[in-house]
This record gives sequence, C-alpha cells and structure tokens, in this order.
Amino acid sequence: MSNVKEGFMRISQLAERSGVPVPTIKYYLRENLLHEGELTSATQARYDDSHVQRLRLVRALLGGAGLTVAGARSVIEQIEGPHDTVGEVLGVAQGSVTADVEGQADLDRAMGLIRGWGWDHLDPSDIASVSALARALDGIDAAGFDLPDGMLDHYAHHMADIASEEVAGIPTESVDAAVRYVVLGTVLVEPLLLALRRLAQQDASGRRFLHGAS
Amino acid sequence: MSNVKEGFMRISQLAERSGVPVPTIKYYLRENLLHEGELTSATQARYDDSHVQRLRLVRALLGGAGLTVAGARSVIEQIEGPHDTVGEVLGVAQGSVTADVEGQADLDRAMGLIRGWGWDHLDPSDIASVSALARALDGIDAAGFDLPDGMLDHYAHHMADIASEEVAGIPTESVDAAVRYVVLGTVLVEPLLLALRRLAQQDASGRRFLHGAS
Repeated sequence: MSNVKEGFMRISQLAERSGVPVPTIKYYLRENLLHEGELTSATQARYDDSHVQRLRLVRALLGGAGLTVAGARSVIEQIEGPHDTVGEVLGVAQGSVTADVEGQADLDRAMGLIRGWGWDHLDPSDIASVSALARALDGIDAAGFDLPDGMLDHYAHHMADIASEEVAGIPTESVDAAVRYVVLGTVLVEPLLLALRRLAQQDASGRRFLHGAS
Repeated sequence: MSNVKEGFMRISQLAERSGVPVPTIKYYLRENLLHEGELTSATQARYDDSHVQRLRLVRALLGGAGLTVAGARSVIEQIEGPHDTVGEVLGVAQGSVTADVEGQADLDRAMGLIRGWGWDHLDPSDIASVSALARALDGIDAAGFDLPDGMLDHYAHHMADIASEEVAGIPTESVDAAVRYVVLGTVLVEPLLLALRRLAQQDASGRRFLHGAS
C-alpha cells in the first residue's frame, strides 16, 4: 500500500476510475487487450493513466464498434506499432481490421468494377478488401436480391467522396497519429455510417409512404 | 424412393442441388432457418425449389451479410410476413435487423443531430435506430477519437442521399416485395458499403501519400 505513488493505482482503483469491474480487467489482461501493470510484489501490480485510456479504447472497440476480442487485439496491435511511414502502414492498418476471407469469391468482377471507377491507386498486395467487395456482391446475388440499375455506381461514388474527405483529414505530424486515425476511423465510423443510413432510410420512407397515403 | 416425384427431392438431393452439406441442412432445420419438408414417411421428408431458394438466402445472410443465426432467423421471419401496408412495415422490418440496445446511450444528443439534419419523418416508436446512432457516437468518444470538424454532417448528408435513392427504388406492386427489398437491402448492402469505403480509402490514401512522396 505504501508503494502506491501519485498517478499509480492498484487494480481496484483502476476499476473505480475506469468503471470496468476487476474481473473484466483481469480478463482483458489475460487476452492481451490490456498491457500488464508494473509488478510491485509477487502478487500486486500498479497501473497508470495509460491503463485507464486503454480500457476506454477496449470498451469502445468491443462495444460500439462490435469487434470480437481477436479483432480488438488486432486493432490495438496496429495502433501500438512499430510503424514505418504513413503511406506504407495504411494498407496494413486497414488489412488488420478486414475480416478473413472465407471461401472463394468472384474477384474478377470486383476488380473490373474497381477499374471502372478509376480507383487505380489500390495496394495490389492487399487482396482482403477486394475479396470483401467480391463477397458482398456474391452475397447479394446468392440471396436473389437485385440492386436497382446504377445503384452500385451510386454507392461507389458516395464512398469515394467520403473516403476522400477522410483521407484529407489524416494527421501527418506522426506516423502513430496517422495509424491511430485510420484504424479507429475505420472500425468506429462503420457503425456510425450504418446507423445513419438506417435513420435516413426511415426518414425517406416516411416521406414517401406516410404522406399522401394514410 | 418411389415417392420422389418430379420437382421433389430427398435431403441428399437437396444437398447436392444447393451445395449445402446434409448435416448443415439439418442444423438449419433445427434452428428454424429452413422450413420443414413434407413428411413422406416417419423418417423421410421431401423438399422442393422453395428449400433450394431458402438455402441460398440463408447462406447469403450468414456468409456475406455476416449475421448471427438469430439475426438471420429474424430477417427470414420478416420476409415471410404476414404484412400490412408498405408504410407500416418498413419500421418493423428495419427494427428486426437492428441490434438490441446494450446499456444506456446519449439519446438526447442523437435526437438533436437528427432534428438538425431535418430528418423529421422518423417513426417515433422506433428507438432502436436512434440508440444505434447514440451508441456509435458514444463509442467514438469513449475511444478518444475525434471526428474532424463537419465530418458528421458530411456523413449524414451522404447517407441521406443514398437512402433517398434506395427508398425511391422500393417496389410497390406488393407489400411482400417491398419488405423483401427493404430487409435484404439493409443487411446485404451494409457489407457492400463498408467494403467500398475501405477500397475508396485505400485509393485516396494512395493518391495522397504514395505520389510525390516515395
């Protein structure tokens, strides 16, 4: 107890400050989502502000962003580095939060679309994102769902516009800051975009169907 | 064997035609993702084209759309009906594919934003979508991630534009067709949009960082 200096906490104090219960903190430690504290005796460790901040991030990734424990660990590893240059790490950062490919998808169609949109600056080694597009298209086909004519191009143009604003906002003062922005921006903004789309759909269908009708 | 009429199949034939293994078909039957076949004896049932189509849908929902078994069952129940009018069922259809609320989120901020965007045709009884927005925003805050100024409005405007095109495409010849379009359009298009955003980000960061630099 005497070795608890200012700014250092025991696990019970970390629980209190972060709002995360002690058993959950221990689980995060075991799962390598939270870095170990500094051992002060064989059975006690002390924690600091970096642990409070990390717990906030872990809660956000597992909660709002809906990642699995493995997904959150991958995001945290990316953020922790080490990193080289901004340009080099972006593909890796994105790749780390892209789901693994399951089964074979129609990559040729996806590549054809990508070329058609003029997206010719992709990282050719990152096949994961192209696969994700191919699987999404295959899923739509497999369900017998037809996108209206021109809808796919419409989606692509909106996403290109969004991405261009997002990339313009990437901080360049440090590689760490850039990677943090890209990785968190990818996983935390996804649920935001999907929530906005559903709300906007509700609003649009309210306008179309609840007026005039009733 | 003699009772296998044209257009009817035993489970082994259904497996062959659909590409889904027999044990998986049995699992889907147990989980109510697939409707029972017509019993032809105490131990044998016969299946038809509706089972082949349903299996394609189930695979698309569990695979491409990444839903859980419970989520896929909810989507299928929505599609199966019964339905009233297009306007009435849209909120229900969307609600059925929106994740349950966990914990408390800052609904007031979300409602304030929604009002600010002029989205005043929402279904006031559907709190799930507003909660999803509130949780997404809370997750971003909790992770200590700052959206650049104006970015949230930018996202909202793009999603409003996308939603307006999507709602304009809702077929109105039957309520069933409309519900199918909305439910599948919601869950199957989400992975498509996210894949497009990641690809577009890669393209945009390639343009920003790999040129001039190197």
